[in-house]
Amino acid sequence: MPEQEEPLSPRREHWREIVFEAETPAGRRFNIVLLWLIGLSVVAVMLESVPEIAAKYAAPLRIAEWVFTGIFTAEYFLRLYLIRHPLRYARSFYGIVDLLSVLPAYVALLLPGAHALLVIRILRMLRMFRVFKMVRHVNGAELLVRALYSGRAKITVFFSFMLAITVIAGTLMYLIEGPEGGFTSIPTAIYWAIVTITTLGFGDITPGTPLGRMLTSVLVLTGYAIIAVPTGIVSAEISRLDGSDTTDACPSCGVCGHLADAKFCRRCGAPMA
Amino acid sequence: MPEQEEPLSPRREHWREIVFEAETPAGRRFNIVLLWLIGLSVVAVMLESVPEIAAKYAAPLRIAEWVFTGIFTAEYFLRLYLIRHPLRYARSFYGIVDLLSVLPAYVALLLPGAHALLVIRILRMLRMFRVFKMVRHVNGAELLVRALYSGRAKITVFFSFMLAITVIAGTLMYLIEGPEGGFTSIPTAIYWAIVTITTLGFGDITPGTPLGRMLTSVLVLTGYAIIAVPTGIVSAEISRLDGSDTTDACPSCGVCGHLADAKFCRRCGAPMA
Amino acid sequence: MPEQEEPLSPRREHWREIVFEAETPAGRRFNIVLLWLIGLSVVAVMLESVPEIAAKYAAPLRIAEWVFTGIFTAEYFLRLYLIRHPLRYARSFYGIVDLLSVLPAYVALLLPGAHALLVIRILRMLRMFRVFKMVRHVNGAELLVRALYSGRAKITVFFSFMLAITVIAGTLMYLIEGPEGGFTSIPTAIYWAIVTITTLGFGDITPGTPLGRMLTSVLVLTGYAIIAVPTGIVSAEISRLDGSDTTDACPSCGVCGHLADAKFCRRCGAPMA
Amino acid sequence: MPEQEEPLSPRREHWREIVFEAETPAGRRFNIVLLWLIGLSVVAVMLESVPEIAAKYAAPLRIAEWVFTGIFTAEYFLRLYLIRHPLRYARSFYGIVDLLSVLPAYVALLLPGAHALLVIRILRMLRMFRVFKMVRHVNGAELLVRALYSGRAKITVFFSFMLAITVIAGTLMYLIEGPEGGFTSIPTAIYWAIVTITTLGFGDITPGTPLGRMLTSVLVLTGYAIIAVPTGIVSAEISRLDGSDTTDACPSCGVCGHLADAKFCRRCGAPMA
Repeated sequence: MPEQEEPLSPRREHWREIVFEAETPAGRRFNIVLLWLIGLSVVAVMLESVPEIAAKYAAPLRIAEWVFTGIFTAEYFLRLYLIRHPLRYARSFYGIVDLLSVLPAYVALLLPGAHALLVIRILRMLRMFRVFKMVRHVNGAELLVRALYSGRAKITVFFSFMLAITVIAGTLMYLIEGPEGGFTSIPTAIYWAIVTITTLGFGDITPGTPLGRMLTSVLVLTGYAIIAVPTGIVSAEISRLDGSDTTDACPSCGVCGHLADAKFCRRCGAPMA
Repeated sequence: MPEQEEPLSPRREHWREIVFEAETPAGRRFNIVLLWLIGLSVVAVMLESVPEIAAKYAAPLRIAEWVFTGIFTAEYFLRLYLIRHPLRYARSFYGIVDLLSVLPAYVALLLPGAHALLVIRILRMLRMFRVFKMVRHVNGAELLVRALYSGRAKITVFFSFMLAITVIAGTLMYLIEGPEGGFTSIPTAIYWAIVTITTLGFGDITPGTPLGRMLTSVLVLTGYAIIAVPTGIVSAEISRLDGSDTTDACPSCGVCGHLADAKFCRRCGAPMA
Repeated sequence: MPEQEEPLSPRREHWREIVFEAETPAGRRFNIVLLWLIGLSVVAVMLESVPEIAAKYAAPLRIAEWVFTGIFTAEYFLRLYLIRHPLRYARSFYGIVDLLSVLPAYVALLLPGAHALLVIRILRMLRMFRVFKMVRHVNGAELLVRALYSGRAKITVFFSFMLAITVIAGTLMYLIEGPEGGFTSIPTAIYWAIVTITTLGFGDITPGTPLGRMLTSVLVLTGYAIIAVPTGIVSAEISRLDGSDTTDACPSCGVCGHLADAKFCRRCGAPMA
Repeated sequence: MPEQEEPLSPRREHWREIVFEAETPAGRRFNIVLLWLIGLSVVAVMLESVPEIAAKYAAPLRIAEWVFTGIFTAEYFLRLYLIRHPLRYARSFYGIVDLLSVLPAYVALLLPGAHALLVIRILRMLRMFRVFKMVRHVNGAELLVRALYSGRAKITVFFSFMLAITVIAGTLMYLIEGPEGGFTSIPTAIYWAIVTITTLGFGDITPGTPLGRMLTSVLVLTGYAIIAVPTGIVSAEISRLDGSDTTDACPSCGVCGHLADAKFCRRCGAPMA
């Protein structure tokens, strides 16, 4: 990220490398300690929510929380200080996550309970992929994200139709079963339709009339059948992307993504090596 | 749609473009306002069904409903008037949806409760894809529909077998568990079998005997295994359509299956048309 | 099926064609009437199981059942008489289904309740595919059956592992939660494990302890992840089979299943047309 | 496994072949008897856990358990004695399973209840694939394991994201619904989030507030959509492995992707090696 405009002071550069990169042994050690602290702090927040544990260990858990928050707050300011473009970092995905990882502790001073939101720290653990140089994992993640992204048009259409189906099916169930059947309002009935079409099936609201059960059967069979659609979309995208990845760039124009048996570049017509 | 038989009056043509097309700035604005009205009217119908909200805001919601219905009724007649072939529009998918979007309000004068069916207006929102020129989305939808369509033979066979399995499994459960186990009749037991084979699992009716549980296990494992079948069908169709769609044959050697952005045939190197 | 050993009498042959084939107008009419009778008889059996309906219409439903059974029994003997190899028919899939479609009515004379098994008649409706000349559907079915068949090795392995997982997970839950948690015995716990791993989730038995919930999470995530495996198997088989179907036979040696862009037969090396 | 360092005594070698290999008729018979004993012993452990059966047949089941344990213990020591490298066997997958198949019986002398763990014996039944020479099945298993293995990077990323989603969604639900809604602690809420995102849906804990139901809808739709991701990963890997496995490159022109039984290159017509 730091462009070669003007070098940082060697000392700042040295620390920047430790905090932001995981390439040097020192940076690696720093990041691994950080990951452990993050993991422990998430566990501490979770334990504090268990009544039996909170009753016994309220004080040490509260202290631990403030220690973790202190460390992470210091780390956040350190990051802001070390990097050349603090605003760019502050607005990046990890910059926002880093801020959200400490804010709930301070908010909880005014709004008790909010500190449970500290579990958002778990998002910081996604840094792990970079720390452990899991390049292959990151490639995997990238492929997934690209497959979802390149299939987004189809996925949008798919969810629009699903929304229309659940709104209409929910309203019909509201009319058929009515409040005495548990379908107390159209929004509740739409919630039920989503629970049904996704085959979740909590069973907190269930149809009691023959007509309602018939509509339920149609709805869940629809869900069971169209579960195929996003699967098909994403599979097809992954196959396509994966295939285009495995081939070489054109030696003449450098375009990638040729078919596996291409003899000529599809862009410039030069023979492939 | 309007064939060049005889031009509409310029004024009528002007308005037709605004109402039916979303190409001109005025048409775009008209359609966006319309989409907002549709969305708001659906939300109003939903809110009216929530007892707590209905108790407080019965009057304004009722007024809003009639305002929306009035606007949409006027719009429907405007569309009929503006278009060259009113009957053709009235019988088209959107023509029917537009009519069904206002009818329930009038039916509800005779049949209280029917006005909840006004949520069918949500189908009008599918027009959104055209308004926002989401051509790529429409292509996505088309591909999905075509994949489902070209796989319909296999899907029909699949659901025929599933119907046979659920009827027979349901009847067996009716015999094994009987009315005292909640399986009060064969239709109820078939409903249960559908809930089970799709892995929905409401839990409103559950097997209590060892034999019933064994049959349940077999049934759900069948459903879990054959969930693969529609998935496989649709995936294969999408792959096939996606491949064959995006490319033409090479004009020189006739080879198909080029990538979408190919400028030169990957087999013979001739330029693609 | 009838080999050309010795012709049937023209009259018997004429009737055989009507009853067994759906090629002639008469045969088509016969088979359509039969399909309607089968459908109605299945509906009658279902209705008889609904207490409210049975109370009102017990007599007509009982009469209808015996009329249907009489017709189907006569039809079964007619088929046996008309066909050249009665035993071969009697042992074929449809021969057995035809017999099982009438037997429960007679068994019910001794064993009340057995007549519900008459719903097995629904299997006779699979003949529909042939009657309506849905050749494409039958091809679809064949492709599915072939994909399942050619993937049977992988599917067997898959279900063996799933059996092992559910037996072990069920036993662990039996030890963790015990009878007071609803896991009254190991077979019950295995039933629960199957309900969980398939994501059915009735909710009739649920874990109550932290350890049980942790194991449940692992089990259902396993099921959610490996739902991919049969899907992947069947998809891959369908792709493979579908692909090999679409290409022509070699004009020289007649071998099928070439790749779409093959220029030379992969068996004999002759150029493909 | 035994390297040709120094031959075993013919007698030991003879017995080793019977016990470890299923090639000879005697070895085959030995292994089939063993499989039956394993199957029966698992059934016996299961039956003992059913209260009604245990009450009646406590003594014979207890005796059967000790007989089976005695046989399997003797068999374990026999295996250790017969094989050239006992430690290597003891540390192999099957060596550990064989030991775990008898240990619980002895542990149960001190720790009542532990003997239910004897069902781990079911893992011994995986030997069946080798005994029945189901080479094709083993290949199937190998392909599956390799597909899962070569997709492990993507699968790890996928489950990391799912963990992050369930932790955050669970915490939000804990804040929204709170202990009075059944979400008694964050770990419980995370358990609920896993049950929901996998579409398991026990229904033991369900949202009661509008906001909670909205979040549930988003969560389950996420799970319904991303159920595609592992499916896509594994499908793509299976396709790739299946394809790359079965064919070599053409020795003359180097083109890959021939069908498994190709004798001539489909591109240049040269004979395949």
